[in-house]
Amino acid sequence: MCQLLGMNANTPTDVMFSFAGLATRADEHKDGFGIAFFEDRGLRHFIDNQGARCSPVAEMVQRYPIRSDNVIAHIRKATQGRVTLENSHPFVRELWGRYWVFAHNGDLKDFAPRLHGAFRPVGDTDSERAFCWLMQELAKAHASVPSIGELSATLRELLPRPAAHGTFNVLLSNGQALWAHGTTALHSLQRRHPFGAATLADADLSVDFAALTTPRDRVTLVATEPLTSDEAWEAFAPGELRVFRGGERVAA
Amino acid sequence: MCQLLGMNANTPTDVMFSFAGLATRADEHKDGFGIAFFEDRGLRHFIDNQGARCSPVAEMVQRYPIRSDNVIAHIRKATQGRVTLENSHPFVRELWGRYWVFAHNGDLKDFAPRLHGAFRPVGDTDSERAFCWLMQELAKAHASVPSIGELSATLRELLPRPAAHGTFNVLLSNGQALWAHGTTALHSLQRRHPFGAATLADADLSVDFAALTTPRDRVTLVATEPLTSDEAWEAFAPGELRVFRGGERVAA
Repeated sequence: MCQLLGMNANTPTDVMFSFAGLATRADEHKDGFGIAFFEDRGLRHFIDNQGARCSPVAEMVQRYPIRSDNVIAHIRKATQGRVTLENSHPFVRELWGRYWVFAHNGDLKDFAPRLHGAFRPVGDTDSERAFCWLMQELAKAHASVPSIGELSATLRELLPRPAAHGTFNVLLSNGQALWAHGTTALHSLQRRHPFGAATLADADLSVDFAALTTPRDRVTLVATEPLTSDEAWEAFAPGELRVFRGGERVAA
Repeated sequence: MCQLLGMNANTPTDVMFSFAGLATRADEHKDGFGIAFFEDRGLRHFIDNQGARCSPVAEMVQRYPIRSDNVIAHIRKATQGRVTLENSHPFVRELWGRYWVFAHNGDLKDFAPRLHGAFRPVGDTDSERAFCWLMQELAKAHASVPSIGELSATLRELLPRPAAHGTFNVLLSNGQALWAHGTTALHSLQRRHPFGAATLADADLSVDFAALTTPRDRVTLVATEPLTSDEAWEAFAPGELRVFRGGERVAA
């Protein structure tokens, strides 16, 4: 299984601390990593078919504080699909003049929907196939970028289809919001004033966010497993969709 | 104006020497840079709205030998469009299960074709608009990835349309070949056995390729201006399309 990390904030925020936590889990997830940072409509997209422990790209991401309001990261342990660059999450497509980023934790059995639209997988993972199908169905459901609420309603109808074929913990963002859907393992956490300290669950590293933030900052993190040992992560119910905008959870 | 660099090779090759040459021109091209490396169907895509002289991403690209058989790089001096991440070349879209990468040097006046297909610009450059139009027209002309010769024939029909609106030196690749179209400034150079030494035109740096290559290696470079002072770069005629596969020029 793979590990997911998502971040949504009301002010551009770096994810160096959380990505360090994710990277400590990379020993058993050596089949690639990827991270995508939105800056308004623009996107930085880094992937590697080396693991996060030895990839020069991952090393750069951990050294330089790239600030973003929507981030999706993934470390991979291959279940379906070869260990190649084109099979590395997150995947990116353009629709309605916006980039869309998708990452998946889990394994789908026999999900082979008909892809008759403008989106085709480049690699051979179940994950990219599910993403292309989602984009195709979104493109049919709306004529241009819908509101966050309208898009959430469409996703609530669509997500059970692939989820019926296995484990479908996913993160999706278009730079305006972060959509998170859990079937077996997904947790979210909001950090806001008063900020405290946090300690990584898997590494001897802690940070005092009070020194790094302003009282109006809002940051929400989503991860397959809680990344810190001393904060109140909330588990998703099976099949739950949560939507985050400006660091706050909004109605799905 | 911007600077372009393309590379096409029959064996995965790094572009550190040539990218160093391009980066020395970055003082006057401080409005961003980008580089895309194909590895078979997979793609690494690095962009930054900082110039190549101060970008940590450019620094990483210059330190790590990423080997690829098709590379497109661009350093930007903004003429149209703001200096934002979404306006940084090269641009990427997916069509027929392949990634397509495009970069443009020049300026188009009043090129506003109708975009009724599946490709929309995310940013506000004339370049991305022209790329989306090209992808839309390719999608109409073929049902799936055509042969290199068929695609070249379609491009030869399409490229004069945007080129009629200004300067349209462009590089396009889908990982199978590199298409290069020049209207005012584009040069190509093949390196093959017997390999010799080369000296960068803009920096006090030279390299002896004989020590780094095997007799069967073929590498073609394309650049707006010759990058080296002691090799026989061939200028494109106005409106000329050249196609490179496996490091060799093939019939366009």
